[in-house]
Amino acid sequence: MIMSVKNDAAPRPVTVLGLGEMGSAIAVVLLAAGHPTTVWNRTPEKAEALVADGARRAATVRDAISASETVLVNVKSAAAVDAILGEAKDVLAGRAVVNLTDGTSAEARETARFVAEAGARYLHGQIMTIVPGLGHPDSVVFFGGEESVYDRHRPLLDLLGGKGTLVAADPGAPVLYGMAVHGTMWGILNGFLHAAALLKDEGVELKRFLDHAGPSLSALTAFLPSIADEVDRSQHAAQYGALRHHLPSIEDLLRESRARGVADHLPAHTLALVTEAVADGHADDGYSRLIDGFRTR
Amino acid sequence: MIMSVKNDAAPRPVTVLGLGEMGSAIAVVLLAAGHPTTVWNRTPEKAEALVADGARRAATVRDAISASETVLVNVKSAAAVDAILGEAKDVLAGRAVVNLTDGTSAEARETARFVAEAGARYLHGQIMTIVPGLGHPDSVVFFGGEESVYDRHRPLLDLLGGKGTLVAADPGAPVLYGMAVHGTMWGILNGFLHAAALLKDEGVELKRFLDHAGPSLSALTAFLPSIADEVDRSQHAAQYGALRHHLPSIEDLLRESRARGVADHLPAHTLALVTEAVADGHADDGYSRLIDGFRTR
Ligand SMILES: NC(=O)c1ccc[n+]([C@@H]2O[C@H](COP(=O)([O-])OP(=O)(O)OC[C@H]3O[C@@H](n4cnc5c(N)ncnc54)[C@H](OP(=O)(O)O)[C@@H]3O)[C@@H](O)[C@H]2O)c1
Ligand SMILES: NC(=O)c1ccc[n+]([C@@H]2O[C@H](COP(=O)([O-])OP(=O)(O)OC[C@H]3O[C@@H](n4cnc5c(N)ncnc54)[C@H](OP(=O)(O)O)[C@@H]3O)[C@@H](O)[C@H]2O)c1
Repeated sequence: MIMSVKNDAAPRPVTVLGLGEMGSAIAVVLLAAGHPTTVWNRTPEKAEALVADGARRAATVRDAISASETVLVNVKSAAAVDAILGEAKDVLAGRAVVNLTDGTSAEARETARFVAEAGARYLHGQIMTIVPGLGHPDSVVFFGGEESVYDRHRPLLDLLGGKGTLVAADPGAPVLYGMAVHGTMWGILNGFLHAAALLKDEGVELKRFLDHAGPSLSALTAFLPSIADEVDRSQHAAQYGALRHHLPSIEDLLRESRARGVADHLPAHTLALVTEAVADGHADDGYSRLIDGFRTR
Repeated sequence: MIMSVKNDAAPRPVTVLGLGEMGSAIAVVLLAAGHPTTVWNRTPEKAEALVADGARRAATVRDAISASETVLVNVKSAAAVDAILGEAKDVLAGRAVVNLTDGTSAEARETARFVAEAGARYLHGQIMTIVPGLGHPDSVVFFGGEESVYDRHRPLLDLLGGKGTLVAADPGAPVLYGMAVHGTMWGILNGFLHAAALLKDEGVELKRFLDHAGPSLSALTAFLPSIADEVDRSQHAAQYGALRHHLPSIEDLLRESRARGVADHLPAHTLALVTEAVADGHADDGYSRLIDGFRTR
């Protein structure tokens, strides 16, 4: 079910290239808001439900692009984006391409360069939700590109998520922002699943654990601003809770994991980071000092 | 600065064994609440400031234990606890030992067994804060042991943190709960530092990143209850955002890390977990399916 963000965008023709799980959901949101929507997908059958909902299906990428001043792209990969846009370079001039396809920052910049060369404006958008959250007032999309292009498309773009935000003029920036959130997400997710494996080995119901530990877990993100500040200032000294005070509990976590036959990959990694920092003379620094272990070059 | 939890405990003699960073802070909290406090530390000089604050210093572990019915222990490791209590077994009978030393669940149980054999009651406490949080109304301490012992000591124990909670009769349980929180904490911390290394490589100020991404990051812990529920029910199917839809963005994170010379350890681990789950036929399952990769035996 899509909850629409309140949005008074005047109807404007828009094209969606790519109708996978996310691309289809994007088209649904645009149609629901009353925008004349042209769709194209490599496998044309995926457009059928959307056509039934009022979308116009284009037979070719060129036709699809020619139908609207604003072209949203959401396919599997940057390589697919390049392939699609590459066959329609001559019809891009004067349009705005909003690329919502994940990739690296270098890929986003390369696509931006190609689009500019073709005489079109470019925005890169990094969608930070899965399909059920698309169009939700709380959902975040990071954008990168020219402010004037962003502002002009704002009513349309806000349909994707109520917390859309232009993070920089650089089209690579939203990609980096998205990766930074995803990387943190995988961190907490994998850390929690490792913990869950320990608790399950003991037969503890996770719901019961969360009843007691929920407040401790929700508090974990509260540390991030101070860690960010320490990294920004390259100031890592800790008056309390310095790295050397954490070594015993990391070693415990590693020993407990091994004793229970739970994968020791994550605690071994943490121990290696802390041990290295201590060996480098940083035993009295706090967590944020561990950033050194991530900067390998 | 110690913020005292409101607590109307009648003064009762209490002993603290171990005056490191945390043990000293524990003694400070007890003294501040007006409890006659006897302290002992292997290196006796560390007791000096506490004696000036009104603590009584015992010359030996046996004297320290004999001085109070309630004995709190906070030293470096379970091995140190065993060494300390081992030389005073005959004076333990009839007392309550509250062991606040980190260790594995097996070590906590072993210490509990030894203490019971000596005729004393046992509680294991896992302190979930660093020193500045000790005694704070929001600070959590997980306890494990007999409910009657916990209840009787509640006014005293609540001095350590306003959110103390008895999680189970098993003295190993608080250790596991604490590890589960710490493991999740290291997960989010390391994930964030990896992300920070990417952003810093691009020259992005983390404060600026958090201004935009703060809401996305604080939302991350909101997923945990549903993941916990899926693990509890062994139900991992995902209607949206299944593992196969996450593979491209994990690969992007890995490629971006490598391109920037940022350590690829964490994204490589995530990719291995997801790739294995997909190879095992779970491409349409959600995140929670990855728990299989942590259960290695
Ligand atoms: N799903 C999510 O929850 C989610 C969330 C945030 C961001 N995203 C991002 O959104 C993008 C799409 O993800 P998705 O989950 O919707 O993927 P998906 O369901 O697997 O669909 C992939 C789409 O890409 C098209 N495609 C692949 N290779 C192509 C090529 N060489 N030329 C033309 N079209 C090609 C596919 O066309 P066919 O139908 O012909 O195969 C299909 O339309 C990805 O960058 C993803 O990371 C997804
Ligand atoms: N610091 C924290 O923020 C924090 C937070 C939560 C939990 N904890 C846990 O609290 C416990 C103490 O941590 P801490 O940070 O306070 O450690 P610490 O500052 O390093 O102090 C260690 C204490 O253990 C004593 N000790 C070590 N080996 C001993 C032995 N064989 N016999 C007798 N005493 C021995 C030391 O005595 P000497 O003075 O003679 O060396 C000292 O009193 C650990 O289990 C830790 O994981 C600490």
